[in-house]
Amino acid sequence: MKKSLSANTLVYPTPVWVIGTYGEKDEANVMTAAWAGICCSKPPCVAVSLREATYSHGNIIRNKAFTVNIATEQYAAEVDYFGISTGRKVDKPATCGLTPVKSELVAAPFIKEFPLILECGLLKVVEIGLHTQFIGEIMDVKCDEEIIGDQDVPDIEKLRPLVFSPVSRRYHGVGDFIGDAFSMGKKYRKKT
Amino acid sequence: MKKSLSANTLVYPTPVWVIGTYGEKDEANVMTAAWAGICCSKPPCVAVSLREATYSHGNIIRNKAFTVNIATEQYAAEVDYFGISTGRKVDKPATCGLTPVKSELVAAPFIKEFPLILECGLLKVVEIGLHTQFIGEIMDVKCDEEIIGDQDVPDIEKLRPLVFSPVSRRYHGVGDFIGDAFSMGKKYRKKT
Repeated sequence: MKKSLSANTLVYPTPVWVIGTYGEKDEANVMTAAWAGICCSKPPCVAVSLREATYSHGNIIRNKAFTVNIATEQYAAEVDYFGISTGRKVDKPATCGLTPVKSELVAAPFIKEFPLILECGLLKVVEIGLHTQFIGEIMDVKCDEEIIGDQDVPDIEKLRPLVFSPVSRRYHGVGDFIGDAFSMGKKYRKKT
Repeated sequence: MKKSLSANTLVYPTPVWVIGTYGEKDEANVMTAAWAGICCSKPPCVAVSLREATYSHGNIIRNKAFTVNIATEQYAAEVDYFGISTGRKVDKPATCGLTPVKSELVAAPFIKEFPLILECGLLKVVEIGLHTQFIGEIMDVKCDEEIIGDQDVPDIEKLRPLVFSPVSRRYHGVGDFIGDAFSMGKKYRKKT
């Protein structure tokens, strides 16, 4: 018998992504989001939900662009700071000694020190409730050579992205390799 | 200097969620999705993107409901099978010896053996491209007592959800505790 926990955002895992935008004075701003995910393969898109009250919300509307900087273990404190401070009052990248770089593809900055970044053009805006969902088309993915693994794509064990637990509000790393997708399940095909 | 990997869904981590629906003959069906995430706090909502070609896509449109069953390490092979087979041809839960349970809140089944499930009513349908995004309002979250931790919410270390790496197509577990969110970043407040 399962216990009811009521209607709440108790789902796992959620990502930890740092969203890069330009502010009202064209200054580089970053904020942390966990209500996010991939939402389409063609065109390749991500969805990021932000409250209208945030500075980044207006920045995305105005510039029609944002970056996704994948939060990693070594930047956990910086990433957390990006989520508890506002770009209306502080220069978040400068406070943490991080370097914003202007994207050549979209009107948004990415963080040089973060090993994996996505440059996104705003494709759709979906009003849901407290959060507005921004659907961004991925125009390019850029990464540091050090995190490239097999198949010439990032290796999650080298990237070491953060995982967030809603409500209990904890960061975890990524753990052991469990198995290959589109492969482990083949044993059940014999049974049908 | 970052290397360009072109426009692709190379972002991390992505969740592994098993989506429960009723099929054309009211039979219980499940499929695995990784293009998904939380998208709103009030009302609490998740977004799940599926290709129109999938059986589950039509099931959600018809029943206006789905469940999210969080994939965990011990069911990795079953979850993978749910992603490489179609409910048009096989009874996936039965093939794996798993038990569908009819939700009392929405017109969709959940899997009894999975420790954490969400019952969702369809709120919005967003056409993006190859994928359709279904935004579901979370009507209830139900879980097994064994995975409850502090604060009376699920403990990610007890739940042991899967993490998926796109393109390289690998499953990983959740790793070490890194720190408390809304806390680790406070040290930077002193600097501003």
